[in-house]
Amino acid sequence: MVIYVIGYPNKKQTAQPIASQMHSYSGRGMSLEHDLNLSNTYYNECSRALIHKKPTPIQVVRVDYPERSAAKIVEAYYKTPSTTDYNGIYRGRAIDFEAKETRSKTSFPFKSIHPHQILHLKRVLHQKGIGFFIIRFTSYDETFLIDANTIITMYESEKRKSISYDTVKSCGVLIQQGLTPRLKYLDAVDQVYFKEEDK
Amino acid sequence: MVIYVIGYPNKKQTAQPIASQMHSYSGRGMSLEHDLNLSNTYYNECSRALIHKKPTPIQVVRVDYPERSAAKIVEAYYKTPSTTDYNGIYRGRAIDFEAKETRSKTSFPFKSIHPHQILHLKRVLHQKGIGFFIIRFTSYDETFLIDANTIITMYESEKRKSISYDTVKSCGVLIQQGLTPRLKYLDAVDQVYFKEEDK
Repeated sequence: MVIYVIGYPNKKQTAQPIASQMHSYSGRGMSLEHDLNLSNTYYNECSRALIHKKPTPIQVVRVDYPERSAAKIVEAYYKTPSTTDYNGIYRGRAIDFEAKETRSKTSFPFKSIHPHQILHLKRVLHQKGIGFFIIRFTSYDETFLIDANTIITMYESEKRKSISYDTVKSCGVLIQQGLTPRLKYLDAVDQVYFKEEDK
Repeated sequence: MVIYVIGYPNKKQTAQPIASQMHSYSGRGMSLEHDLNLSNTYYNECSRALIHKKPTPIQVVRVDYPERSAAKIVEAYYKTPSTTDYNGIYRGRAIDFEAKETRSKTSFPFKSIHPHQILHLKRVLHQKGIGFFIIRFTSYDETFLIDANTIITMYESEKRKSISYDTVKSCGVLIQQGLTPRLKYLDAVDQVYFKEEDK
């Protein structure tokens, strides 16, 4: 089976036909990644921050060089990411986060977080960076920022396999949505990490 | 022509047979990227810093899903990078740099720096990050750290198409080489950016 894809799929699901994607995001047709990329472009352009999504790591095995054309990769595989997807600089601080969405109405399952990403965020916090998760509950069209420490503590507790929607709501901060930026997530960052400085 | 490659080639040259690569690095067989990756692994493991090479951006066009096997990318192309190759956190500061090597004995040509990378480093400096270039003159097996501001100023001067070896030597800092880490480039960062604090 051969499927044409647009952009960088992280997993098979994202390679669905566009129509099916439209449906799955309640007709909005926009994924969390898309919203974050638009928001980051806006934040970068207006010099509020400098945050990028890292390219999806791909292991290239075979490259074809057609004459007078660009190199064409003809065999490659997705690699397991060893870091989070997003990082950059905000208010002079290093910022690093992972964004995930779930269709569940009750909880965010930890199985969608890779152990490498937990290790990476622990290192970010150790180096005095700002680390967090952005979690979207697509059923409610609600997106939260939640500090990495909160997630790491629960992730490493053997009894837990997920974090409930209610816990995300009470421990995290709801990210306001708008036109530009689509996700005003730096306002949430201000609220969580710069509250004292902004007084 | 089909060529099998190891790792992530940025340009056609890196897809040379291994033997030819060995030769071009004076028998050391190690590229600057390889040395930096080893050094970063060491720095990350000993918790001195958290610095990674970003994956090479690749535009995936076609993916094949063989039954019961991993997704196989069968058509993809290298994209022009919109940022630098390396970033991370060191001493609580965001750090961002580009690494380049040249075989020239007299100068480092600016044509190997992409305009997007200059724009990105300007934004890094604006956001109070630490930005620099690591430039290796392979003929001398000498690797220098040079502040982004120095390169940007020269790059944007219309008369200049390159920076001479002598200028790199006088304006930059020679990076000491060793076994672990291969390139002691954070010592050079200390020297350039933390001299006052370390007094």
